[in-house]
Amino acid sequence: MKYHITVDIGGTQIRSACYRMNSNTPVMIERISTQGEQSALERLCMVVEKTWPTDGKVCGISVAAPGPVDPWEGIILYAPNIPGWKDIHLKNHLQAQFKVPVTVGNDANMAAMGEWKFGSGIGHHHLIYLTISTGIGGGIIMEDKLLLGQRGLAGEMGHVTVLPGGPLCGCGKPGHLEAISSGTGIARWTQGEIQKGRPSALSAHEVITAKLVHQAATEGDELAIEAFNRAGFYLGMALADFLHLFNPTIIILGGGVSRSGELLFAPTRQAIEQFVIEPHYLDNFTLTQAALGDEAGLMGSLALAQEYFPA
Amino acid sequence: MKYHITVDIGGTQIRSACYRMNSNTPVMIERISTQGEQSALERLCMVVEKTWPTDGKVCGISVAAPGPVDPWEGIILYAPNIPGWKDIHLKNHLQAQFKVPVTVGNDANMAAMGEWKFGSGIGHHHLIYLTISTGIGGGIIMEDKLLLGQRGLAGEMGHVTVLPGGPLCGCGKPGHLEAISSGTGIARWTQGEIQKGRPSALSAHEVITAKLVHQAATEGDELAIEAFNRAGFYLGMALADFLHLFNPTIIILGGGVSRSGELLFAPTRQAIEQFVIEPHYLDNFTLTQAALGDEAGLMGSLALAQEYFPA
Repeated sequence: MKYHITVDIGGTQIRSACYRMNSNTPVMIERISTQGEQSALERLCMVVEKTWPTDGKVCGISVAAPGPVDPWEGIILYAPNIPGWKDIHLKNHLQAQFKVPVTVGNDANMAAMGEWKFGSGIGHHHLIYLTISTGIGGGIIMEDKLLLGQRGLAGEMGHVTVLPGGPLCGCGKPGHLEAISSGTGIARWTQGEIQKGRPSALSAHEVITAKLVHQAATEGDELAIEAFNRAGFYLGMALADFLHLFNPTIIILGGGVSRSGELLFAPTRQAIEQFVIEPHYLDNFTLTQAALGDEAGLMGSLALAQEYFPA
Repeated sequence: MKYHITVDIGGTQIRSACYRMNSNTPVMIERISTQGEQSALERLCMVVEKTWPTDGKVCGISVAAPGPVDPWEGIILYAPNIPGWKDIHLKNHLQAQFKVPVTVGNDANMAAMGEWKFGSGIGHHHLIYLTISTGIGGGIIMEDKLLLGQRGLAGEMGHVTVLPGGPLCGCGKPGHLEAISSGTGIARWTQGEIQKGRPSALSAHEVITAKLVHQAATEGDELAIEAFNRAGFYLGMALADFLHLFNPTIIILGGGVSRSGELLFAPTRQAIEQFVIEPHYLDNFTLTQAALGDEAGLMGSLALAQEYFPA
């Protein structure tokens, strides 16, 4: 029996899954915290070992890694959530350890691959995927190919400026889409408005989260609804820009905030229609929700493994 | 002897050039106004006929057309500067007329091809070209391929929002890069500041043009210099976004306004450095001026003809 192993490195945990050749259903999934006695790299190897099949051959390991990645050299340039991870030569390390070929890609790019091959994007040739959670990342498929750029750093769609001089992004720059339309952005704006004295059911809470804002919005809280309208407005404005730049047939929104459904999608669609320069951009165009949930990264890695490491 | 014919449809004139197979030097260039007794389409055919070689075979005609183009069907969806041009099936029309294969592309995309094959972008695999004149257009080459999107409408880099609620663009939407950093944008802002009472050597002029602002800036006029600083600031902010989205090795600026040199390039470079999220985006990266001038469109069409219509 032949297998693929795929790994998804998250901010708090690392997951490893084992798939039989040509199957999309994992035989086994294991997870481990990134923090512990051993280094994150050692823990990554531990969890891969746990999913190693006893009855056959592993054709390759495919890893979805956070932060900027050089996909050709398999180097994690840095991982925002794992202290000390900078220029980690993950491909070389894993190949030396496990004696099988290894590929490494950015996790949001991998999630785009996953949605394209197994999720909402099946059959599309020009696809944009955005994950909207604490941050905003994404991946772009053009003519059936992941857009990588010279060093694999393309597709950072959370880090486009939508409001010059606006709130600071996690990256330190002002006014990025991520600073406004991510969960963090939604919570921060709502907290700020409450501090300014705006009435809201949320004012009882000391710390506001996007989840709380979502809950309040579904219960009709005006400020909370406005928070989603604002996030959707800037998101739709950015998506109109992406239509003009990429002319895709589909934009797929994933990540926790996208699960707010129409609360986010309605103002986003409205802004796209408001800002698109030409109706032809909306020909054969769909804005839709991701299908794979938290599995997108693992599934995208699987797509890459199936492509790179055939039996 | 075998030949290619290339055509560049401008706002005021149509040019046709004839090249010997595998030569980049035109045997003949003819031009004709878009306006006259005959329709623009008839005039286009007239100027192509003028460059038709008498001693051999034409392998194909390649056309650079203004406005959104469907490059697969060879349809000009509309041409902003030619009244009545909407859904012009140019490829079919020219093929029926001249009995040779025809290809049609957006003029800014063709200029990107020209700079890539024959100009400042030779040897690059990930290239962005912007033409900054009365408007802003462009073309994107990723992994040695023109990025077209589903209908060929990708690469509209002038129509990204850089200042929400900002000045109206030629397309009717607010705050686009084109509305601020094009020649029109520079002239309009300067005129507005003078009307507000800002002192400037330009206040003697009734109508301000980008050329006049450029002239005044080189003579040390503070308002004129500020106009270029502002254009460069927003341009650099947008280019930083493009670095995050496309991770190119080179961005080439063409068009009349780009010829202002350091007046525009210095604030643009400064803004790129200010807004880029990660120094790796500047690895092996060059911002530079176009090499081909007004010939970029014809040369890009030639590149396409050489690819599509070999001997």
